[in-house]
Amino acid sequence: MKRLLLILNLLGVIAFGHSLLAGNHFQYVDPFIGTGKGKGGLGNVTIGPSCPFGMIKPGPDNNKGSNSGYLADTLQPIYGFSQTHVSGTGGGPKYGNITVMPFSGDLESILQTSLRTNEVAKAGYYSVFLKKWNIRTEITVSPKVAFYRFVYGNKTKCLEIDAGDFLGEKPIPDSREAQQFVGSEVRVESDCAVSGYSRIRGGWNNGDAYTVYFYAVADRPFVRFSTWKGTKLSNGTKVQVDTGEKTGALLYFDDTFGDTVRLKIAISFISTQKAKQNLEQEVPHWNFEQLRAETENRWENLLKRIEISDDATADQKKMFYTALYHTLLMPVDRTGENPKWTSDQPYYDDFYAIWDTYRSSHPLITLIAESRQVDIVKALLDIYKRDGYLPDARSGNCNGRTQGGSNAEVLIADAYVKGLKGIDYGLGLQAMLKDATVPPGGNEEKEGRGGLTDYNTLGYVSDRFVRAGNRTLEYAYDDYCIARVAKGLNRMSEYRRFLKQSNNWENLWRDIEDHGARGFIMPKDASGRWIDSIPCDIVNGQREFLLYTPTAQDWPNCLCWWCGFFYEAGSWEYSLSVPHNVPGLIEKSGGKELFSKRLDTLFDNGFYNVGNEPSFLTSCLYHWIGRPDLSSERTRKIITDNYDATSCGIPGNDDSGAMSSWLDFHMMGLYPNAGQSYYLITSPFFRQTKMHMENGKTFVITAKNLSGKNRFVKSATLNGVKYDKSWIEHADVAAGGELLLEMGDKPAQWGATQLPPSGEF
Amino acid sequence: MKRLLLILNLLGVIAFGHSLLAGNHFQYVDPFIGTGKGKGGLGNVTIGPSCPFGMIKPGPDNNKGSNSGYLADTLQPIYGFSQTHVSGTGGGPKYGNITVMPFSGDLESILQTSLRTNEVAKAGYYSVFLKKWNIRTEITVSPKVAFYRFVYGNKTKCLEIDAGDFLGEKPIPDSREAQQFVGSEVRVESDCAVSGYSRIRGGWNNGDAYTVYFYAVADRPFVRFSTWKGTKLSNGTKVQVDTGEKTGALLYFDDTFGDTVRLKIAISFISTQKAKQNLEQEVPHWNFEQLRAETENRWENLLKRIEISDDATADQKKMFYTALYHTLLMPVDRTGENPKWTSDQPYYDDFYAIWDTYRSSHPLITLIAESRQVDIVKALLDIYKRDGYLPDARSGNCNGRTQGGSNAEVLIADAYVKGLKGIDYGLGLQAMLKDATVPPGGNEEKEGRGGLTDYNTLGYVSDRFVRAGNRTLEYAYDDYCIARVAKGLNRMSEYRRFLKQSNNWENLWRDIEDHGARGFIMPKDASGRWIDSIPCDIVNGQREFLLYTPTAQDWPNCLCWWCGFFYEAGSWEYSLSVPHNVPGLIEKSGGKELFSKRLDTLFDNGFYNVGNEPSFLTSCLYHWIGRPDLSSERTRKIITDNYDATSCGIPGNDDSGAMSSWLDFHMMGLYPNAGQSYYLITSPFFRQTKMHMENGKTFVITAKNLSGKNRFVKSATLNGVKYDKSWIEHADVAAGGELLLEMGDKPAQWGATQLPPSGEF
Repeated sequence: MKRLLLILNLLGVIAFGHSLLAGNHFQYVDPFIGTGKGKGGLGNVTIGPSCPFGMIKPGPDNNKGSNSGYLADTLQPIYGFSQTHVSGTGGGPKYGNITVMPFSGDLESILQTSLRTNEVAKAGYYSVFLKKWNIRTEITVSPKVAFYRFVYGNKTKCLEIDAGDFLGEKPIPDSREAQQFVGSEVRVESDCAVSGYSRIRGGWNNGDAYTVYFYAVADRPFVRFSTWKGTKLSNGTKVQVDTGEKTGALLYFDDTFGDTVRLKIAISFISTQKAKQNLEQEVPHWNFEQLRAETENRWENLLKRIEISDDATADQKKMFYTALYHTLLMPVDRTGENPKWTSDQPYYDDFYAIWDTYRSSHPLITLIAESRQVDIVKALLDIYKRDGYLPDARSGNCNGRTQGGSNAEVLIADAYVKGLKGIDYGLGLQAMLKDATVPPGGNEEKEGRGGLTDYNTLGYVSDRFVRAGNRTLEYAYDDYCIARVAKGLNRMSEYRRFLKQSNNWENLWRDIEDHGARGFIMPKDASGRWIDSIPCDIVNGQREFLLYTPTAQDWPNCLCWWCGFFYEAGSWEYSLSVPHNVPGLIEKSGGKELFSKRLDTLFDNGFYNVGNEPSFLTSCLYHWIGRPDLSSERTRKIITDNYDATSCGIPGNDDSGAMSSWLDFHMMGLYPNAGQSYYLITSPFFRQTKMHMENGKTFVITAKNLSGKNRFVKSATLNGVKYDKSWIEHADVAAGGELLLEMGDKPAQWGATQLPPSGEF
Repeated sequence: MKRLLLILNLLGVIAFGHSLLAGNHFQYVDPFIGTGKGKGGLGNVTIGPSCPFGMIKPGPDNNKGSNSGYLADTLQPIYGFSQTHVSGTGGGPKYGNITVMPFSGDLESILQTSLRTNEVAKAGYYSVFLKKWNIRTEITVSPKVAFYRFVYGNKTKCLEIDAGDFLGEKPIPDSREAQQFVGSEVRVESDCAVSGYSRIRGGWNNGDAYTVYFYAVADRPFVRFSTWKGTKLSNGTKVQVDTGEKTGALLYFDDTFGDTVRLKIAISFISTQKAKQNLEQEVPHWNFEQLRAETENRWENLLKRIEISDDATADQKKMFYTALYHTLLMPVDRTGENPKWTSDQPYYDDFYAIWDTYRSSHPLITLIAESRQVDIVKALLDIYKRDGYLPDARSGNCNGRTQGGSNAEVLIADAYVKGLKGIDYGLGLQAMLKDATVPPGGNEEKEGRGGLTDYNTLGYVSDRFVRAGNRTLEYAYDDYCIARVAKGLNRMSEYRRFLKQSNNWENLWRDIEDHGARGFIMPKDASGRWIDSIPCDIVNGQREFLLYTPTAQDWPNCLCWWCGFFYEAGSWEYSLSVPHNVPGLIEKSGGKELFSKRLDTLFDNGFYNVGNEPSFLTSCLYHWIGRPDLSSERTRKIITDNYDATSCGIPGNDDSGAMSSWLDFHMMGLYPNAGQSYYLITSPFFRQTKMHMENGKTFVITAKNLSGKNRFVKSATLNGVKYDKSWIEHADVAAGGELLLEMGDKPAQWGATQLPPSGEF
């Protein structure tokens, strides 16, 4: 039956073409959103087409220092379209491998660039006009194949395939976060096919060498070709062997078959022949529109799982579905493409980083594509099994970079508390315990828990280790996650140990005041003494010390970006990051009233940073003082101030869709506390949201009488029964039904008496 | 001039053929020595041909569980000749990739095996007769190319190339020390060429996946071919893409060109095209005899650097030059073949393990091929720079397995104290300090110093960590090595710290008696309490405890092989392993007399194990009590009892030539104390040994009046000057000259008064 539907679907696509697809949610996707500079910095999303979790991500490159390879600035000439990108990342770039570039002039140069115009970007489609030679370039994709259609305005039709290009190269080998060239090869396989590879190491995650193999085939023969190594171009040389130099090929077409040249290029992490097989299996035809329609369909099938009502503005629809699209770009499904081991488990790469995505991206994937999330967790456990540790970040088949906690543990707990089936939780607990008990030593930036030797003896990470503040906070939460899984598996001694450890955040809680707020996470040395000042600048030959206060920031001025007490934030933000014990946090902060003021101060004084994941839950903390209305008001203001439907519409790096998924949850009126089984309820942006889940159930969130004025929840029912809680359990959502929120024009008592969970289980 | 010599040399080879080569030391090499089972176990040397430090090591495989792939047992049928082997190793096998197998019957089977006869093995040459089909197989090599000559006795001539074969496969994936299949590919490139690869992970060093690419070309077209994947054989299918299954090719030749089929197969760790380039660059011809002569010449040029006098028996010549040959097989020169990074430094792999080879193999390489040793150390430092740690063992491009100490440090110090030029010792010290200060955490078996957190706080490794005994001893010596280099570089605070730490062996020295000997390295817990018993068997449901005494051994009965207090030995052996402070050791043992008795007890009671590298120096410890004659007598007896010129002539695993190099030093009458700058002088086996060094100098050791009876040094001169010391500095050897030892028929006073260094510097 499924097969029949699939065939009908394909037939439909073929018979009726692109415009008649049943759904059209994919049309709201605007890949320009987040390509520019938002309020907090560059969004760095990839603009080129991709399938959901797709392995190939071709797109235009006009800046080798950019994480996406792309700057919105139209005065930056495009130098090619590379096949691999990550989306929304910061730090040193990764990928940008195997560039193709159509050109028409300067036939013997391997440096071909052109300014652009008429750029179009859609889900599964990108096109641009290369002004220099009047060439329109269009791209669509299958999971592992990029399909290019070049329409040349000139008689001379050439194509460059560069196996030596990549992003983030620096003059000094082994520069921190620089990608480094290892080797490349090209081979002209026939008069219409070229294969080869690019082997690169390093990049943001400081990974070992990865190899991107490719197989490219044109729909017409090239009449002549050259290949190069280094700077030496050789006419008619079929193979440029890998001797540690950059190689590529120039292909020349004549006029025989008209102006359009189509090129399919498949990639593989296994071999050129595997790339060829990927090409033949995924795109055995030359019908660009067909492939585009298939990929739009892939997107549609996922995007339509959340239907928002028509009262959403055009911009809101764009923002919502583009954010959903961004959430579904990464991690990348590389099942069958793992060069490091074979197994019967799925394989995903480009977790970049789980620190960013565990809070909202994975919970959103869990809601609308649960089987994907199951596969992702299984892949993580298989990585643990073969590589020895769960990754926090992983890219290019290599664990690397733990920003804070060992947050893959949260994903395991999140799957467990939400009842996801098919995961070996026994293995999961084993992986979590490895993180929590075996110090990664010299690999502290790579995996596991840096500073664990302190944490497991002192109960906190002391100033002997960098990022001691957020590490302590995050390990405490990771420990809470371990305790939950341990209890579920009846491992009671581990449960007790880690539940106790989950209070370790208190060991760095210092009872001081700042801007009227009481109690902050502050640095402590190994002997238990609070640290009040930090060595910083040298002025006039004298070392100056920074007074360490909750508003002080040691990085990046006194110390390197990764070397501060907190990672990418300060104490005002991080001190509120105790997702498993908000009531305890409120108590330590001096009670509800002081806590409420503290939150106000945070937001009003600009101590809050919208682009920082540790603060993702913060605007909802008002829920725990019985004021979900304040949570909603704060969140709404954050969104209004920072997000929009323009290219600058994401306030800083999208972080593999982390920022986007945060937005989507709040637009629907839910926000998860990952690792725990509930969602906080906030005021939705739409009158109705329908979530069609994989289990066949639909959950509806209705905001009755919602308007710009009526934006406060007055009362609620769940499946017709009065519902006073300001949160909802995942099980209730997964069972399907309707959460009806009666909206009013002023703050009401709903959510005031029953407070959300305090982490008990 | 050099080029001219090379050309003349090559011309000589071509013009006059094989028999007229000037030297003939290579003819004494008998690769059968060590292929059988010696007194302490299998020698496991590779029997097939190799160049010195050669990357390709083809050879017959008749046992997938064997480290060398080869058992001497002629009832074990050969299943193929694989291109990659290591020599003399133990533990789980590594390599055994890309098997070729000629056959004549059962044309459609991929399981071809035959019993063998008429085996011939020489330096650079191997041949065997496959009885089943009357096929003679001959193999010779260049550094990266194997050249096969098959003479078929039957009309039907077939050849199997198997990209799925490898040694040490086990049914359970991720079994400890098992090699695991990742993927393979074959591609018929033309009617005489096949390419492909094998990708394997694991093995002894638990390494990541490595890929052996190959390019094979026959000297005549095959008239038909099949390829397979899994068990499915497909006639005429040119490519078997890597989908994680085993692949291979069967090639069929007809009678047109006679009975002989020649096959050249090159390997690469970069790509099949790089393998092809290796093939074309190294062996552009089809002259088997020419290549054989070239490779014999390569060996001759190295082996002839040590000339021993004609009084050596035929067996002694065989033993000496075969041992030298074994010493020069590994590590393997893979410069230009590193798939993980590019750099201008040499690249060596298959350090297997430095724990085994640092004591005698590398000092011997330093003496006769100093530039090689410089390259090897440079390669180690480049590995540190890119992978983060020096390896103790490394294989398949991956650090893995630290047996005891971080002994690459000894190699750096050894190079430093012997004045080797061209090494960046600043970088070397940095690499050593990384080992000594940054715990490897969860990678304790991979690199660095396991148990360092204990060692750097307690001054010893406590029973919290496995192998605590030998780790403490070896780290103390490694620290001594650091101190030497630090002082040389004027890094005085590091010098003082590590010189002090080099006494840490004393922290585990327990003043107890056993068999009349006083003081032993014994286990201690973290609180400083000695450990007297160790939990062992469970008998009748009750845990039994092992009384831990100096003769007790906790592994492998109570604990796993790698889990005991000492690695592969007991306290009687290890307690004597303080190479930087033998006088201190003697004092702690109760003085010279007691120490002498202790040594006698060790040897007479069988507490000594000839096959264990930590005891390599032990038979020479009599030097430090003024009795070099006793050292020589003990050593001579060990050699007589354990070494001979038969296939069983190495007493246990040769360990990449460690056992062999120990033998050679003692046959010459020198023994190094690696990391320090001198050699102890023992009674030579030959009347004269001439060492021709790379610096153009020759050092001659003459044993005047040496006979079976006259085996005691009566007196000595160095360059004609009376020489009373029982040791000689490397600088004196390197300067060239003659050490003349007057031999007599009874122990004399020579060496009695001046004692060898006690590590001071």
